Amino acid sequence: MRKIIRYNNVFIQDTASTAGQKEAEGPLATSFDLIDTDAYFGKPTFEKGESEMVRITVNLLLSKLNKKPEDIDAVLCGDLVNQCASSSFGVKTFGIPHIGIYGACSTCAEGLALGGILIDNQSFKTVISLASSHFCTAERQYRFPLEYGNQRTPTAQNTVTGCGAFMLSDQPAVARLESSLFGIISDNGVTDQNNMGAAMATAAVDTISRYFYESNETIDDFDLIATGDLGYEGHAIATELLAHRGIKTDERFTDCGMLIYDTKRQDMHAGGSGCGCMATVLAGHFFRQIRENRLKRIMLIGTGALLNPNTVLQGESIPSVAHLITIRTEK
Amino acid sequence: MRKIIRYNNVFIQDTASTAGQKEAEGPLATSFDLIDTDAYFGKPTFEKGESEMVRITVNLLLSKLNKKPEDIDAVLCGDLVNQCASSSFGVKTFGIPHIGIYGACSTCAEGLALGGILIDNQSFKTVISLASSHFCTAERQYRFPLEYGNQRTPTAQNTVTGCGAFMLSDQPAVARLESSLFGIISDNGVTDQNNMGAAMATAAVDTISRYFYESNETIDDFDLIATGDLGYEGHAIATELLAHRGIKTDERFTDCGMLIYDTKRQDMHAGGSGCGCMATVLAGHFFRQIRENRLKRIMLIGTGALLNPNTVLQGESIPSVAHLITIRTEK
Repeated sequence: MRKIIRYNNVFIQDTASTAGQKEAEGPLATSFDLIDTDAYFGKPTFEKGESEMVRITVNLLLSKLNKKPEDIDAVLCGDLVNQCASSSFGVKTFGIPHIGIYGACSTCAEGLALGGILIDNQSFKTVISLASSHFCTAERQYRFPLEYGNQRTPTAQNTVTGCGAFMLSDQPAVARLESSLFGIISDNGVTDQNNMGAAMATAAVDTISRYFYESNETIDDFDLIATGDLGYEGHAIATELLAHRGIKTDERFTDCGMLIYDTKRQDMHAGGSGCGCMATVLAGHFFRQIRENRLKRIMLIGTGALLNPNTVLQGESIPSVAHLITIRTEK
Repeated sequence: MRKIIRYNNVFIQDTASTAGQKEAEGPLATSFDLIDTDAYFGKPTFEKGESEMVRITVNLLLSKLNKKPEDIDAVLCGDLVNQCASSSFGVKTFGIPHIGIYGACSTCAEGLALGGILIDNQSFKTVISLASSHFCTAERQYRFPLEYGNQRTPTAQNTVTGCGAFMLSDQPAVARLESSLFGIISDNGVTDQNNMGAAMATAAVDTISRYFYESNETIDDFDLIATGDLGYEGHAIATELLAHRGIKTDERFTDCGMLIYDTKRQDMHAGGSGCGCMATVLAGHFFRQIRENRLKRIMLIGTGALLNPNTVLQGESIPSVAHLITIRTEK
């Protein structure tokens, strides 16, 4: 089996996105619904701030669609903070049935793919899927205290401060969730946690290859194919590996981590990363273009590095996974 | 909507369970497929050991059913270690599409409930759902270094070293996954991380009440109703709260955390906890009774405390969630 899942009637009703200061200084600034330049989002700690960002984003999404929490049958959510606390604390006041997921930075794609199945199976009528990350909570959890001001390597990526949320239901809307393909864990032996693009590139290539192999489609069937957060380093590797497999790519093949910052001007090294990277770029930038009919059919590949700081300290390489979804307009 | 999900054709083909020393000293010892009294499971660290336990359990399950990894369409898995590393590292060599979930100690129920939807939607033909926990990885991550030998409070629970795995498909088998109900996050203000039973009791009561309210069933419709790991403290609270709501319980209402240890003899305070608690008790003890037709219809309620050590340090209370499944024999 392990086939591409084809959804019958799953639509993205609308999206909401919240982002931080660095994202607001980048080229996609106007695509986000809400920007807060306060990394604390008005709270006393970064962690509480990230949860507040999640809470605000859910409220934005509900408000856009004039929905109340009780109209939502489930929220699928995840983030990078230990025990996915940012998202669960962020949604805890809504009283919506909670389905916690963890796919590292592939969480956005995993949630949409799973959410689509819940809707298509008519188990649920309306679900919200969301993913969140925060530079300050990730940096001090995965790397160093912020106060330390450590230097970063050229292949390092910058965790996006952002949350993207999506409302799915079977009611026709501008964007149809068309298909998905869950990823197989790939471990290519990369041990450098400052080069997660290289660790994740093989997972992305594997899932993209499986999709094209089964579907007989090519990049020409899409207006855009975007990985989640391979960054410049991982994108270059993935492009080369796809070429080796005879899979043609061109400028339509891009990466959310390359798009979210003006990398050189903002000194962002290899680009953006984090669950919030694909989530905000899809919810904001891409969804706007879908709405304006400038993108008609797109493929997104969420890429997740399944490490934690201890696995690195214990000498493990970095396993990765990439979940794929395709979206097309109904126009 | 938010209704009880009723599965059409989802069956638990078989289960596998692996457990550690303390579990082997308890009353359910003979129900586990494999016991390893080495907390390292032959590996150099506890974390690598937990992953090895997961890997062994998947192999046990595949072997029982004479299946190969390529016969499995997806593995839903989760654990308590940061970034769910124990389970993802444990399954990474199988090449099975990976769906990471996080529900703290409700993970076993969450995975079965979600896996059932994937099968019923015919998105997948065969999936494995598993949950794992390990006393030594949890203790040093959540509490103190083991070497410190700290004393525990009377309401503290002991994290089960164990992994339980389940194979689901639409092929008729001894046990049918009948229905599920996803939990709503409950936060009753408990801040004591050594009293997670009290924190989780309200979540369990909420989900059980919702189930009975919608279904018009009572405890008399079940041979057994077991929460995941409320322990003695949480079980007493839940029993009282259910009575306040007019929901009758009797000796058929129990808790996996109360069953897995001989609490007094083993000095286990309020009982067992951890993702592996419900997973191993269901996969071992309960499933054996289902197979022997001594249990015909059971309700399991996975209970998860959605904290991490930082949320406690930052003064947050402990939100909890409880996911419910019902299973019945086909005999």
